[in-house]
Amino acid sequence: MAESWSFLDTFETDFRPLVVIELAKGTKEETIEWFTNRIVDKKTNGGAQLLVKPLVTENGKENIYLVGASHLRLLLGAETVGLVKECNDNSMRTFTYSSRKTFKDFADDNHNFLTVAECQYIIKHELENLRAKDEKMIPGYPQAKLYPGKSIVRRLLTSGILVQIFPLHDREELKKLRHSWYGRVKVGYQPLDEIRCYFGETIALYFGFLEYFTFALIPMAVIGIPYYVFAWEDYDKYVMFATFNLLWSTVILEVWKRICAIMTYRWGTLLMKRQFEEPRPGFHGALGINPVTGREEPVYSSIKRQIRIYLVSLPFVCLCLYFSLYVMMIYFDLEQWALDYHKENESNFSNLMLFVPSIIYAVVIEIMNRIYRYAAEFLTSWENHRLESSYQNHLILKVLVFNFLNCFASLFYIAFVLFDMKLLRQSLATLLITSQILNQFAESVLPYWLQKRHKKRVKKHMSSLKTDTDLSLVEQVNLEKEMGTYFGTFDDYLELFLQFGYVSLFSCVYPLAAVFAVLNNITEIYSDALKMCRVYKRPFAEPTANIGVWQLAFETMSVISVVTNCILIGMSPQVNALFPDSKMDLVLTVAFVEHLLLAIKFIMAFVIPDKPREIQLKLAKLEFESLEALKQQVRATDMYNSEK
Amino acid sequence: MAESWSFLDTFETDFRPLVVIELAKGTKEETIEWFTNRIVDKKTNGGAQLLVKPLVTENGKENIYLVGASHLRLLLGAETVGLVKECNDNSMRTFTYSSRKTFKDFADDNHNFLTVAECQYIIKHELENLRAKDEKMIPGYPQAKLYPGKSIVRRLLTSGILVQIFPLHDREELKKLRHSWYGRVKVGYQPLDEIRCYFGETIALYFGFLEYFTFALIPMAVIGIPYYVFAWEDYDKYVMFATFNLLWSTVILEVWKRICAIMTYRWGTLLMKRQFEEPRPGFHGALGINPVTGREEPVYSSIKRQIRIYLVSLPFVCLCLYFSLYVMMIYFDLEQWALDYHKENESNFSNLMLFVPSIIYAVVIEIMNRIYRYAAEFLTSWENHRLESSYQNHLILKVLVFNFLNCFASLFYIAFVLFDMKLLRQSLATLLITSQILNQFAESVLPYWLQKRHKKRVKKHMSSLKTDTDLSLVEQVNLEKEMGTYFGTFDDYLELFLQFGYVSLFSCVYPLAAVFAVLNNITEIYSDALKMCRVYKRPFAEPTANIGVWQLAFETMSVISVVTNCILIGMSPQVNALFPDSKMDLVLTVAFVEHLLLAIKFIMAFVIPDKPREIQLKLAKLEFESLEALKQQVRATDMYNSEK
Repeated sequence: MAESWSFLDTFETDFRPLVVIELAKGTKEETIEWFTNRIVDKKTNGGAQLLVKPLVTENGKENIYLVGASHLRLLLGAETVGLVKECNDNSMRTFTYSSRKTFKDFADDNHNFLTVAECQYIIKHELENLRAKDEKMIPGYPQAKLYPGKSIVRRLLTSGILVQIFPLHDREELKKLRHSWYGRVKVGYQPLDEIRCYFGETIALYFGFLEYFTFALIPMAVIGIPYYVFAWEDYDKYVMFATFNLLWSTVILEVWKRICAIMTYRWGTLLMKRQFEEPRPGFHGALGINPVTGREEPVYSSIKRQIRIYLVSLPFVCLCLYFSLYVMMIYFDLEQWALDYHKENESNFSNLMLFVPSIIYAVVIEIMNRIYRYAAEFLTSWENHRLESSYQNHLILKVLVFNFLNCFASLFYIAFVLFDMKLLRQSLATLLITSQILNQFAESVLPYWLQKRHKKRVKKHMSSLKTDTDLSLVEQVNLEKEMGTYFGTFDDYLELFLQFGYVSLFSCVYPLAAVFAVLNNITEIYSDALKMCRVYKRPFAEPTANIGVWQLAFETMSVISVVTNCILIGMSPQVNALFPDSKMDLVLTVAFVEHLLLAIKFIMAFVIPDKPREIQLKLAKLEFESLEALKQQVRATDMYNSEK
Repeated sequence: MAESWSFLDTFETDFRPLVVIELAKGTKEETIEWFTNRIVDKKTNGGAQLLVKPLVTENGKENIYLVGASHLRLLLGAETVGLVKECNDNSMRTFTYSSRKTFKDFADDNHNFLTVAECQYIIKHELENLRAKDEKMIPGYPQAKLYPGKSIVRRLLTSGILVQIFPLHDREELKKLRHSWYGRVKVGYQPLDEIRCYFGETIALYFGFLEYFTFALIPMAVIGIPYYVFAWEDYDKYVMFATFNLLWSTVILEVWKRICAIMTYRWGTLLMKRQFEEPRPGFHGALGINPVTGREEPVYSSIKRQIRIYLVSLPFVCLCLYFSLYVMMIYFDLEQWALDYHKENESNFSNLMLFVPSIIYAVVIEIMNRIYRYAAEFLTSWENHRLESSYQNHLILKVLVFNFLNCFASLFYIAFVLFDMKLLRQSLATLLITSQILNQFAESVLPYWLQKRHKKRVKKHMSSLKTDTDLSLVEQVNLEKEMGTYFGTFDDYLELFLQFGYVSLFSCVYPLAAVFAVLNNITEIYSDALKMCRVYKRPFAEPTANIGVWQLAFETMSVISVVTNCILIGMSPQVNALFPDSKMDLVLTVAFVEHLLLAIKFIMAFVIPDKPREIQLKLAKLEFESLEALKQQVRATDMYNSEK
């Protein structure tokens, strides 16, 4: 490897821009020079050894830099981040530069061995790992303190000098991807491997899950249709439907883990070693020694964090939940009042008044949701988590609980306090359909339209200037840097999660929910694809091996749905009629069935292996090989040491 | 390492017997010669490079061999099995011969660096990994086929030539251990680290769990006593007691994981890499290529095994469960009949007759248990599991379910069908106390007495011969080879598991159960210690990082106990009196409380981290270091390759 790094110095290929760095307007010259020097500087001097080129814009005021890297540099970077690629013998192995010849499709002149998304991920990783040496501050900004080992990019970001870093779209590739993804109307699977090559594993996995989930809902939808068409009201039929649904939802969640393992094995992320995680940008604390790495970095007492979580965040979340329930009760009072008013003085006005409470409630919920989201982000950031993953988990948990309550509390109230099945069905349908329409609109149609308008304006502006520089690249960068940022798959998963709630929690009352969910998801795939390709900035690829905390969230929802469905079936008049003598027997039977279903669920989850046998064997083989290799390596190092 | 192995040849220390090999009487000379040669042969020739010495017995008919190894050989073996030891900087690291100087207490002349148990484990590992080269069969036994790579020892065992392999007791060490373990009456902890040094991690962990569990039961016992003394019958008090019990049992199981992690970290097994598991001795199949290792070995289709499990074993187990329930019903009928008989013609005879059904039932249960155990072992062995661990898990599951039913079915029947709380309390007390007394007797007192008798006989026999050979060693081997074999911790854990069931399942009916459990466990520690030290052959040490499937079993029991306790409380007349108007409200309240408790349980299990922060940090540090080291090593190997 030492020789490879030195080899790198004498070797310079033509520049291919991969990542854009935008510095704030009016950033001091010395800062820019220092920063670009550090990026270009040799690895042995603590630089990143990347290539940087300023983007010449028409007014020259903007500080935009394009970052690229030589082919060799990227291969060495691939080894650093621990990419896993396919070998000639079809097995997946961690890429190392010295074993490069054993990898499939590798050739020294094949610059497509690494996908563009991988190259951009490597550059991002290298930039983020650019660390301060003996600088005490960012040159030109004495207030932006540095200490040895601090990530320079993170300090530049937190002090506002660095506006953004984003990867460039690859127009050719994007065109191809768009065509095969949603370019033509077709029945079939999404090109997940191509999506993964272009957007990375996290996003490909979301689309994979969306697709899988849609297919998995089809049996529910198909079985649900006759219930609606023939208006079946026999509750033995509903019981069968609900039982099928409950077991089916367990099966699909378990099978997803297997499919996910197959996909991520193929993509190499299942095997990818977790890199040592750096502190997230917002993390702060007194300078100390990290007990794990022994490096100097901010440390923050875990006890203090626990206190903040349990004594501030938790009570706050509970308060919000209580407040949300309180608002709901007011809504039901208003509703009652409107109904009474309508009954007393029936008129067009009173008819209109009937809708007022719902509208007010919808608006209030939306406002509460947004305020709560800000509060949750603020609180989670104040909890001062060291790792981005831990921050995300705490944020997701907070938002999830609140959204769950907001969406389903009124339905629970109608079902289990008012006992009004007709109203429940009606509310469920209204909530499901309106939320789906609103989401589709707010998520893609609106941003797409805004983006189109903006593009036109930029194009007009550009063509009026008519400079001789590489216009298309400047144009592209200018366009893309104004595009919205895609903040990750959180909202997309949340939407699916709530949809799963609508489908499963009250499935025995409204069997048609699955049909709407399937229809929505088919258009969702297209609108999300559109969103990714045309509305947002290209996001950095993020390797991942599973859908993380969402798997747990979906599984929890499916456990809750066993309880709700059993209660709903028990409350139905038809089932009540089966136990004319004793309500006790009814309740006991329902409770027994519920426990039985829960037990079956857990046994099923336990019995179905999380990874298909084929993948298990491949993993075992790799583990065996690495054990053998370790023995060899120890021997080689020993021999090397003894020869010295 | 290559130099170390060659160094080994010129180096021979005085022989210390560690492991005993007993071959069948009348084993052919050529077989013995071939086998001992293979054991002594150099590693490069495919041997085990151990030392072997025949034991000269008085009649010369017995083929007993003592196996030992030089100090250096043991150190190299420690590297092969991947032992983890403490370093000079107090961190735990995998031992390698080349880095031996960095380990605590290491010195070339310190022969106590490895414990005797570790040495014996290494020798066992080396013997089991002694593989056939080009032999087609065991010399002298044409019917005992071999193929390249087959473990010789396993073939010798299955063909009956090898009677047993067992590690020798170390009389000095054992004396010390006995003294500090149970030699004096004292209040305090067991010397777990010493037990681990002598018997290995699996057994030390069992005693650790037994001790921890006893301490954890003390609060329950202390709280339970006033209920008995003051004959509290207020069910609000029982509700409090049961709630405390349920949450407490969750807490203790979670905390155990943490304590277990602390212990096994100190012992090094938490970090020990799982070795590649060899097929178990009984595994058979057509010769094929193992897809993982690429070696030739018997293969057996996983689908065939699944078919055997689900189409034969599962129905058989269900049938047995049904049969067991059927026998229980007959018992209750008999009981009823005896009661009626007693009422009709009251006499001494009829009074005696009252006990007959219970005695018959107890005997029948015992017989059924034994037959079932054989059947379960036969079936699990017939399922042809490739790995010992998988075999054990399937066996444990089968035996567990049956034992659970046998022990608790009658209690469930009394509680939830007969609704007879008084009888429940009485049966519970009887079952708990008699099973404890019987167990203590059958497990240690009886074998101890038999062992004593046998020892006297051997001593008498020996002294009458008065040969000049090393009598004490011959005597010791002859004594130990006749001792019973300890078949692992299965039965000990099972006993604790059933005890946990008695304590938790019906805790609100019989708060005194915990008191009896504590008393039993205190004597259990002593009787189990006695059993290990004096009754059984010394078992081979088995490294382990946790109590495995038993953690899951205990957790499942604690979930079931939430359900049973909630129902019992709901059934009590005092709670019924609180809901005079509507039984419905009562049932709904109970169901609600039960779900709440279950939810709290799962949240607690989720929130309490499985490893203490301190251990987490140490593990993270090691992971970080190994990532860094890997980078270094790749570089070193590269440099070595480039210099060649």
